Amino acid sequence: MTQPIELQELLMSRKSIRKYKPMISVQYIEELLESAFHAPTTGNMQLYSVIINQDEKMKELLAPTHFNQGAFREAPVTLTFCADYNRFIKWCEYRNAKPGYDNFLSFMTAAMDALLVAQTFCLLAESKGYGTCYLGTTLYNAESIAQILKLPKFVVPIITLSVGIPNEEAKQQDRLPAKALIHHEVYEEYSEKYIDRIYQEKEELPDSHKFVKENGKETLAQVYTDVRYKKEDNEAFSAKLLDFLKKQGFMQ
Amino acid sequence: MTQPIELQELLMSRKSIRKYKPMISVQYIEELLESAFHAPTTGNMQLYSVIINQDEKMKELLAPTHFNQGAFREAPVTLTFCADYNRFIKWCEYRNAKPGYDNFLSFMTAAMDALLVAQTFCLLAESKGYGTCYLGTTLYNAESIAQILKLPKFVVPIITLSVGIPNEEAKQQDRLPAKALIHHEVYEEYSEKYIDRIYQEKEELPDSHKFVKENGKETLAQVYTDVRYKKEDNEAFSAKLLDFLKKQGFMQ
Repeated sequence: MTQPIELQELLMSRKSIRKYKPMISVQYIEELLESAFHAPTTGNMQLYSVIINQDEKMKELLAPTHFNQGAFREAPVTLTFCADYNRFIKWCEYRNAKPGYDNFLSFMTAAMDALLVAQTFCLLAESKGYGTCYLGTTLYNAESIAQILKLPKFVVPIITLSVGIPNEEAKQQDRLPAKALIHHEVYEEYSEKYIDRIYQEKEELPDSHKFVKENGKETLAQVYTDVRYKKEDNEAFSAKLLDFLKKQGFMQ
Repeated sequence: MTQPIELQELLMSRKSIRKYKPMISVQYIEELLESAFHAPTTGNMQLYSVIINQDEKMKELLAPTHFNQGAFREAPVTLTFCADYNRFIKWCEYRNAKPGYDNFLSFMTAAMDALLVAQTFCLLAESKGYGTCYLGTTLYNAESIAQILKLPKFVVPIITLSVGIPNEEAKQQDRLPAKALIHHEVYEEYSEKYIDRIYQEKEELPDSHKFVKENGKETLAQVYTDVRYKKEDNEAFSAKLLDFLKKQGFMQ
């Protein structure tokens, strides 16, 4: 790989990568994971597991759960970061200790651990020249993914990361003005005028105009609400996810 | 600040810092936040807000919600990363779009966004020589914190980070063997023998023996289940958190 990139420099030019060269060293990915496992974790419990997938048959099984996204199909390796209380609970049971982790807070604690490790690995891999792309679809189809990955009770897949050597020149995404996301001491509510101001740049991008036109909508916000992240989908996925959390033992 | 540290090197020696020098440049923290906002975010929606606290009166109000931890009280600045659908929903409403984000999946999506940004900022700040410590207490007392920080509906505090120039030589925490956290293709269940093997190093640490003795317990696992993360506490905090998610509009 190339020289490591300084983190701030990396962030200032960061982009998601969805097309990769076919080869990858899984041994090196594991070495980077080992470093990423030094990420902060609640009470040093390390309530996560990572499932590495590179087998073609497994990828074929998993692809529909990620809506067959190219970023999943074309990646030489994907990492599914799971909230995992199973290992810790087993340890407790073998040590004459009564675990009390079959509840929602414990799920959130393990999910936080998994996400902090995922992002640590993501930045570390990118600092070494890899391209990555998160698949937010993991929580939508958590139960199907868990079945394919044979996740036991107290393990929930949270997020999947595609990793590979970049094989495209991706565009950097716009961001809202930083000041609009930072509040001092207390939350400052957003007035209509302020919303206008902070979304103006995004709304005026050529890509935004294209999305609005292509989807036959009036505003960019309607592309989100009516096409990309729809109420009925969100509600269906919410019900499925809560049901799955119960099945995995987290809603007692 | 000193020269930036390479990310892998940083991780290999990473430790949480709970004692800080009193001075800090909030302007520089904001500059680092601006870089961290390039972290990946679902559909480029940036569903998070960061509340910066440095005012002494605010810290006094907030300290009990973090159980008066030294890492909170002694920090010159704390950052509370919030899941925030409020700003996005307001934008939708002002743009004649009907938001459908009053559900559990949307809460999780925003929480994920907030955690990825938090960890990006955490690593960036550490790469610049700052010390940090996460306060996992934020979700325990989310409602009280939200009242103090004046968070509106659709905003939930997820995690708080203390930041400052280190004023202690902290010890690095042990970690489980990396191989124990990585699974290939499918999840491999942990046998009793394997649990014994992977927890052995942790259980044999002098600090572990000390914790067991100090707390009058038989095993290290009992220190977790009976003292640090108790069933009755987890259940009480779970009920409070689910109730608060309803109040914030996320469980329709």
